[in-house]
Amino acid sequence: MCKKVAIVLSGCGVYDGSEIHESSAVLVHLSREGAQGEFFAPDVEQMHVVDHVKGQPTQEKRNVLVESARIARGNIKDLATLNVKELDALIIPGGFGVAKNLSTWATQGKNCTVSKVVEDTLKAFHAAKKPIGMCCISPVLAAKIFPGCELTVGQDKECEKWPYAKTAEAMKELGCKHVNKHVGEIHVDVNNKLVTTSAFMCNAPVHEVYDGIGKMIKEVLKLA
Amino acid sequence: MCKKVAIVLSGCGVYDGSEIHESSAVLVHLSREGAQGEFFAPDVEQMHVVDHVKGQPTQEKRNVLVESARIARGNIKDLATLNVKELDALIIPGGFGVAKNLSTWATQGKNCTVSKVVEDTLKAFHAAKKPIGMCCISPVLAAKIFPGCELTVGQDKECEKWPYAKTAEAMKELGCKHVNKHVGEIHVDVNNKLVTTSAFMCNAPVHEVYDGIGKMIKEVLKLA
Repeated sequence: MCKKVAIVLSGCGVYDGSEIHESSAVLVHLSREGAQGEFFAPDVEQMHVVDHVKGQPTQEKRNVLVESARIARGNIKDLATLNVKELDALIIPGGFGVAKNLSTWATQGKNCTVSKVVEDTLKAFHAAKKPIGMCCISPVLAAKIFPGCELTVGQDKECEKWPYAKTAEAMKELGCKHVNKHVGEIHVDVNNKLVTTSAFMCNAPVHEVYDGIGKMIKEVLKLA
Repeated sequence: MCKKVAIVLSGCGVYDGSEIHESSAVLVHLSREGAQGEFFAPDVEQMHVVDHVKGQPTQEKRNVLVESARIARGNIKDLATLNVKELDALIIPGGFGVAKNLSTWATQGKNCTVSKVVEDTLKAFHAAKKPIGMCCISPVLAAKIFPGCELTVGQDKECEKWPYAKTAEAMKELGCKHVNKHVGEIHVDVNNKLVTTSAFMCNAPVHEVYDGIGKMIKEVLKLA
């Protein structure tokens, strides 16, 4: 029987939702490994809508579940209906939506709150000892919820290649162990069954992001 | 010097824009081959906006360029500014946006019109003998503009696996030669430098769609 893997989205588009290429890479790698990706997203309004040409918020209102359905080709369910017993693993792709729609990290950093349905989901997989894969910014959710866990968001020294390296510092302040990794690498927290990779936290060619996510997916399925 | 390849998008989401996973596959394969993808889209209003959960149009209005920017991570230009002299090849991913925002195929089939900026772009690459890669539904644009050309949109006999096979019949009625191919295969019209693959015209696992697009990209770059 093929493994069923929940993919939790946060909208559609890097600046106000799930990062599209990370989400697609997750789906392609799961498919190649013979696993079934099942999409979920919270049925809530987005924090805001960003015009991705201008990089500026607009006055529009959009719903996280409805926009996430674009990535899911319509095949998506309300995250509130997720039943951990029916699933073998959980993946959360990155994108600012994680920090805007699944938590308040974008505005509050380490003092953020994680939305209840997302926190409940993460804790349910963790309690059931089912693996969780996270990439890009989404490991901040684990840093907030699982104190002392081991994660990577890439590198902790800011430079042109690693513009978001301060994220690693904030995660350390939350008490987690941050492990520096390159974009093609993953970190595995064996005790907590957390698998992380930096993805677009790094200014890298997109195929390197794709390959790092491939390693994450393989490891998650091995642990499942 | 790396080859520069224009990717023309038609929005963001299979039912009213570019198919997201096809567009992402194009970008990843170009990156792996050392080519540079440059995104373009027409600065026009979408035919309509589809709620991808319900599969029904909404009352919203969205702009093709602005929504396409979600796939392009903000790095996109108005198609009207494309200069064929600065580019080595053209790729048009599929999705209903091709049939709704780049042409009127969705409502008029073989009697459709292709939007002028899209027609001008296709004719400019063709006249310059630069290759054009198209997948899923986007070969209908070539069927309309280049009479007698050779294309594939997969299979011409409708079944569960090939729900859109009537597209092939309509293309034949336009005078083009349709060549049946499986999802992992491409067809190359050497004279016209057109490379086509069926992608999501087939109900196939997403990694097979991804691999078919990979073959299309390699062939386009070989011809460039």
